Amino acid sequence: MTKWVYSFGAGTADGSADMKNLLGGKGANLAEMSSLGLPVPAGFTITTEVCTAYYDNDRRYPDELSGQLDEALAKIEAQVGVKFGDAKDPLLVSVRSGARASMPGMMDTVLNLGLNDETVRGLATASGDERFAYDSYRRFIQMFGDVVLEVDHHHFEEILELHKEDRGYSMDTDLNAEDWRKVIEGFKAKIVEETGEPFPQNPKDQLWAAVSAVFGSWMNQRAITYRRLHAIPASWGTAVNVQAMVFGNMGDDCATGVAFTRDPSTGENIFYGEYLVNAQGEDVVAGIRTPQHLTIQGKVANGSDLPAMEEVMPEVFGQLNDVRLRLEKHYRDIQDVEFTVQRGTLYMLQTRAGKRTAPAALKIAVDFVNEGLITKEEAISRVDPASLDQLLHPTLDPDAPRHVLTRGLPASPGAASGKIVFSADAAEKQAAAGDTVILCRIETSPDDIHGMHAAKGILTTRGGMTSHAAVVARGMGRACVAGAGELRIDYKTGVLRTRTDELREGDLITIDGGSGEVMKGEVPTLQPELSGDFGILMGWADSIRQMEVRANADTPTDCRTARDFGAEGVGLCRTEHMFFEGERIVAVREMIMADNERERRAALAKILPMQRQDFIEIFEIMDGLPVTIRLLDPPLHEFLPHGEAELAEFAEASNMPLDIVRSRAGKLNENNPMLGHRGCRLGISYPEIYEMQVRAIFEAAAHVSKELDKSVEPEVMIPLIAVKREIEILKELVDRVAQEVMDAEKTEIKYLVGTMIELPRAALRASEIAEEAEFFSFGTNDLTQTTYGLSRDDAGSFLGTYEHRGIIEQDPFISLDDEGVGELVSIATERGQAQRPDIKLGICGEHGGDPSSIHFCQKVGLDYVSCSPYRVPIARLAAAQAALTAKRQ
Amino acid sequence: MTKWVYSFGAGTADGSADMKNLLGGKGANLAEMSSLGLPVPAGFTITTEVCTAYYDNDRRYPDELSGQLDEALAKIEAQVGVKFGDAKDPLLVSVRSGARASMPGMMDTVLNLGLNDETVRGLATASGDERFAYDSYRRFIQMFGDVVLEVDHHHFEEILELHKEDRGYSMDTDLNAEDWRKVIEGFKAKIVEETGEPFPQNPKDQLWAAVSAVFGSWMNQRAITYRRLHAIPASWGTAVNVQAMVFGNMGDDCATGVAFTRDPSTGENIFYGEYLVNAQGEDVVAGIRTPQHLTIQGKVANGSDLPAMEEVMPEVFGQLNDVRLRLEKHYRDIQDVEFTVQRGTLYMLQTRAGKRTAPAALKIAVDFVNEGLITKEEAISRVDPASLDQLLHPTLDPDAPRHVLTRGLPASPGAASGKIVFSADAAEKQAAAGDTVILCRIETSPDDIHGMHAAKGILTTRGGMTSHAAVVARGMGRACVAGAGELRIDYKTGVLRTRTDELREGDLITIDGGSGEVMKGEVPTLQPELSGDFGILMGWADSIRQMEVRANADTPTDCRTARDFGAEGVGLCRTEHMFFEGERIVAVREMIMADNERERRAALAKILPMQRQDFIEIFEIMDGLPVTIRLLDPPLHEFLPHGEAELAEFAEASNMPLDIVRSRAGKLNENNPMLGHRGCRLGISYPEIYEMQVRAIFEAAAHVSKELDKSVEPEVMIPLIAVKREIEILKELVDRVAQEVMDAEKTEIKYLVGTMIELPRAALRASEIAEEAEFFSFGTNDLTQTTYGLSRDDAGSFLGTYEHRGIIEQDPFISLDDEGVGELVSIATERGQAQRPDIKLGICGEHGGDPSSIHFCQKVGLDYVSCSPYRVPIARLAAAQAALTAKRQ
Repeated sequence: MTKWVYSFGAGTADGSADMKNLLGGKGANLAEMSSLGLPVPAGFTITTEVCTAYYDNDRRYPDELSGQLDEALAKIEAQVGVKFGDAKDPLLVSVRSGARASMPGMMDTVLNLGLNDETVRGLATASGDERFAYDSYRRFIQMFGDVVLEVDHHHFEEILELHKEDRGYSMDTDLNAEDWRKVIEGFKAKIVEETGEPFPQNPKDQLWAAVSAVFGSWMNQRAITYRRLHAIPASWGTAVNVQAMVFGNMGDDCATGVAFTRDPSTGENIFYGEYLVNAQGEDVVAGIRTPQHLTIQGKVANGSDLPAMEEVMPEVFGQLNDVRLRLEKHYRDIQDVEFTVQRGTLYMLQTRAGKRTAPAALKIAVDFVNEGLITKEEAISRVDPASLDQLLHPTLDPDAPRHVLTRGLPASPGAASGKIVFSADAAEKQAAAGDTVILCRIETSPDDIHGMHAAKGILTTRGGMTSHAAVVARGMGRACVAGAGELRIDYKTGVLRTRTDELREGDLITIDGGSGEVMKGEVPTLQPELSGDFGILMGWADSIRQMEVRANADTPTDCRTARDFGAEGVGLCRTEHMFFEGERIVAVREMIMADNERERRAALAKILPMQRQDFIEIFEIMDGLPVTIRLLDPPLHEFLPHGEAELAEFAEASNMPLDIVRSRAGKLNENNPMLGHRGCRLGISYPEIYEMQVRAIFEAAAHVSKELDKSVEPEVMIPLIAVKREIEILKELVDRVAQEVMDAEKTEIKYLVGTMIELPRAALRASEIAEEAEFFSFGTNDLTQTTYGLSRDDAGSFLGTYEHRGIIEQDPFISLDDEGVGELVSIATERGQAQRPDIKLGICGEHGGDPSSIHFCQKVGLDYVSCSPYRVPIARLAAAQAALTAKRQ
Repeated sequence: MTKWVYSFGAGTADGSADMKNLLGGKGANLAEMSSLGLPVPAGFTITTEVCTAYYDNDRRYPDELSGQLDEALAKIEAQVGVKFGDAKDPLLVSVRSGARASMPGMMDTVLNLGLNDETVRGLATASGDERFAYDSYRRFIQMFGDVVLEVDHHHFEEILELHKEDRGYSMDTDLNAEDWRKVIEGFKAKIVEETGEPFPQNPKDQLWAAVSAVFGSWMNQRAITYRRLHAIPASWGTAVNVQAMVFGNMGDDCATGVAFTRDPSTGENIFYGEYLVNAQGEDVVAGIRTPQHLTIQGKVANGSDLPAMEEVMPEVFGQLNDVRLRLEKHYRDIQDVEFTVQRGTLYMLQTRAGKRTAPAALKIAVDFVNEGLITKEEAISRVDPASLDQLLHPTLDPDAPRHVLTRGLPASPGAASGKIVFSADAAEKQAAAGDTVILCRIETSPDDIHGMHAAKGILTTRGGMTSHAAVVARGMGRACVAGAGELRIDYKTGVLRTRTDELREGDLITIDGGSGEVMKGEVPTLQPELSGDFGILMGWADSIRQMEVRANADTPTDCRTARDFGAEGVGLCRTEHMFFEGERIVAVREMIMADNERERRAALAKILPMQRQDFIEIFEIMDGLPVTIRLLDPPLHEFLPHGEAELAEFAEASNMPLDIVRSRAGKLNENNPMLGHRGCRLGISYPEIYEMQVRAIFEAAAHVSKELDKSVEPEVMIPLIAVKREIEILKELVDRVAQEVMDAEKTEIKYLVGTMIELPRAALRASEIAEEAEFFSFGTNDLTQTTYGLSRDDAGSFLGTYEHRGIIEQDPFISLDDEGVGELVSIATERGQAQRPDIKLGICGEHGGDPSSIHFCQKVGLDYVSCSPYRVPIARLAAAQAALTAKRQ
């Protein structure tokens, strides 16, 4: 016979903590605490299997359930010493849901179940407190009415308010037993009015109704939606916990409270929590009374003048502190507990792993290892890599006042204050003059790179999490709020408008790229402190992970940041970003506008020394580490001036007739530039461009290895390969120019030539491409765009809806789409390795810094991930976790 | 011991016609003719394996070759009765290359080899014709010098011309023996001057040098390039044929000629060919003398006054005619032969399958079946499906004079004349007034559809074979020349300029979409005649093919054409094309500009009756056949007016403020519309649009089946599915609206709901998509774009280079890329069928009308192909061929 009901209490339990799937989180932990001998009120858990059976059988319960429930109830009665429904001294119970994972949207709690018009009098007698008894009864009716009978809670609040008005009361505590009786009459009448039935008086009926309400709520719309969004299968079901009531509101020797076994915001090893004397749990949450601190230390630290539990109930506090120490040792993690003190006796009502801030998670993980409670591997598993982001950027001072203007997308973390500027040029100029500025644009383009570099933060009114502004800002480690759609920017008049305010160039503004908030004026920020714990945990992670972590770094500054954050090389150096800087854009444009190869070569000759200098600095900084350099990728029109005025300016400056300039610019224009004349297609059409770049790379490498005596490992990467012949032709070009330089410089440079895999065709044809390519770097940004047929720039108009409606689980530009894009990555990996067993495999899309995508990379067997410098620590930790997961499997 | 040399002659041969791989085409057929007992001059073939061995062994011949060659040469001597190098009566030979496939770029022919200063005198004596002997010698030196010694042929021509000038001769026939001796001296001196070596006098040296020249030319640059472009492996090698010379130029009882066993331009069963008395083969080709007809019938038909061979040499002609009949019976195909008559004796020098025109191919195939020579299956295999295109469109009268202005891409077949118009509106207006017009645009957009419909032909100056103009024109069956880049169109002044001419609106122009030619004035055209043979062959094809052939048809006109051409349903009806017609575009734009769902529904309500009427007509025409209707696919901005003036006009007409119109249009603008807010993404965002379309489809279906009593099979197709949830949501929408209509109309309509597979992700996730989709239609245009990361609209700037340089074998938008895109089609097919065994599978990209792609579809196992109406016959034939190929394998 299936066991549907699991009892606990009095130092024993049918279940245990590892039975979460069967008993739900709450039930399993109640059983565990009970087995540990901790003071848990007696109770039982109806298993999740009942829920499943209930739905499988057309909402009918298993036959044996009723009998098992009666037995379990009898056990409670035996332990507590009172009877359920006893008119003299009734047993009251709570009914709570408890799924495997915490699930908002489900029925939560019914307290004081078992009270009716008769037993309430028994409770009054037994407790010796009539007011308490009737207060308990009205609380029960109110909760039961709301969550079981589905009578809107406003009705009950209205009745109570009206009664208080009638009597001239201001607080609930003003009501006496008689008042509550009146209110109860009102409640019961309302229930008849709303449901057509009287409030159920039979305690057994009450119990079954409450249990059914919990199971019923598993399939309500909110719960279904939540499950879909969080990929929780409906088949998991929920459990129901029925437990003897204990009361924290029977007098001043009673109390209730919540506590963390350590400080959840700092991780410090101090007992942290709050309690209220003579109160029920819901009072602590409701916030009507000010909760008091558990410890004297806590009271002092927070400047409270209310007495600590340590002072008021020293003995019970001592018991609670013992429980705290036992739970931490037992669970080997910080715990979040609920307790009640009934007439001087401590009862534990809940324990679960405590939620903590990122710094706390770090400190706790390291401390637990030092205390011998957990292993380094466990410590690594317990820190959420994404949370490290908070530690690496400035944050707003939480105590500072803020005037929030609007909210956009939290596009790149960090908080920044500065003067408003509306153009990249202004940003550069004012930053050079010593101002800190926030660049505010409708949207940004590659033209704005220099201004984004100069600014401390970027604010845009258009574009999503993967817009140009967002991607570049994350890469540079600049704070960015994107797509703040309520703002209006008028470049002409130099005004930024909100619904209520109007700000001008030079006005101070603050943005929080972690929350998306945009604030008026300067809000003070706190600088990140990479405490010792951070370094220690990173060290452990590095010793465990198998994948290398590199950085996507285009500039010497990026490279320095990357090394500081522990990058083991550059996985993607985008040479085109170099093209925009300073005067070189002029030469670049001359090159593009050139009418023939000769003119183009003349312009390229001007760019060569500048590009070489870039590489010299980068190689110098990355001394000893590999640097993957991608040859020119974007379509040429990205480098041209936009708009008639800019074109005219360029024509003037370059001494070309305007109509020629306009016509050449027009010719380069494309309908779908993402799928146009770019990547290696440029290298095929204009080999002289790639030749210049390769020459710059190898001349720089020769210089750095010969003159600076540093070790250089260039990896030349050809973008957008679709067919084998492309890489064949371009590899030959690279080898030829490299050989020319090495001959001229009389030196040998070890290098690799490889390709991005960023088109579905390249993934499918990986075997033949690997005949030429010595490494593959998965460009999962573009691979996602082509696999999904989805432009990052344009997806904003509907991708939000898609996520919101659960059509896709997650933005595929943020977390790699394992099923679609991921299959192509797997295919390419297999076929590439079959052709060339020692092929080097990495990822350089934004996914390289996303923990779940990093797990996927480990599973597929990549050699490295590469991400923006500021995400390198995240990637290091995530890679270690992925290695641990792999080891376990 | 390997046999390197194969002899033939005197009614026997070592080889046969089926040894083409070893002996090359020419050698294999010479052997075959010899075995048949036909008069073939004795000779031998050095095999292709020698070529391969030669290159494998560093350009050294196999040891045994020399001995085998000597033996074979001795056989010739024995048969002919003269000796190679004999000073009295020398054997002369020809040396010719002969690969498996005909290959331009290789050394072709050396004649009269074996002559030197001594043997030429023997030849003079033996032939009794001194002039003939020295003429033969100088021809030999000239050819040998050119192709073996690589002395530029201009040198020889110059010497000959100077000699003629000196003597005052105008024709070669004016030269006597002494003259030729002088010329020969000059030739030899020039050879010493150019090569530093005297002309080789030893006949054996001459022979080896000629053989090596043939093998050497296999690896010259032109041959290598040709092989790369035609995917011929270098390992095939070439053979060399050495054959006893026979002379058609030894007097008036000699002749030489070429013939087809039937008329290769009409296919008529008449002997067709030309000959020259007293001439060598090259004289026929050189065109100095007017060739004469073989038959009296030919002479009369062509109004020639030169005597036919049938008259001049009736006996030899009779032999030749016998050979003709034997060859056709033996080879079971039309043959293209070369012959020489030496002093009254007929010799056959070559036979091969004759190239023929499309109408001839058709007639010959059908006639051969009727004559019992081949089976229906063979007849089907012998007609090139692509050639049918010529038969389905008007062609230029080949005899009419033409003034060619320029040449563009042959974008859509057919020839058309008409008045120049520069806008779609003008085209529509003037066509309505009874003019035939050619629409001339820089490029076309969906706005121009009505004008393209109204025009007889379309000419653009920009865009490639897959530009909008080209694709739409092919779909509509309009002639189109695209990307005629030398032309300049000035819309403002209404002028079309070439380098030399200037044409204005209303001037007559002619375009040939089959050749790409653009001509001034009206060139008369011939209407296609779909003769009985066409129908007969199509009937055979239909009985053999396994795949259905449907048409991509958007309008009632398209549907009628499609049925006429034998389509078995509509595979793709693009509803958006309907949106552009007439007044409806106004309602469509109102719908797009609507600020909210209510306004949008109001506008949609205006479109509903028009769309329903479209479907009524289409269902009526397609009575009994399935019609696949694709719901709205393109991004909404495609429907909006372009340019400031058009926006203002729309604002005026629709009573909306211009800045609102402008801002809404701007908001809809996309960076990469191909990857943007389109396809089913619109259906998710604006379900009311799809609801209207589905309602129109089912109301139309109900009307046609109830009122017109015709059978209707709608297949509703959802475009651009990437994730399963999309089709889930939209299938539910279709089913719901369909049910509503069926309930209201009290009728049942059988229908299917399916999806395009046009994104790599959809192909990969086909299994889960097939849980919902009842059919897949491969949208290989978009699938190619996303798999390759290649925009059809933008590829023009480099795809030509790619094809030209052999980076890709063929434009992947024309012939399906089997390896990349094809693998995705295979994957989707397998996974779709595994999930839903009875899933219907088809293709509706342009590839559906491309023969090689159709073979791929058969191999993968699709149920149908769908193509533009004018390609339906091509697809029917190609599908039959594919079925035959499948049967053979």
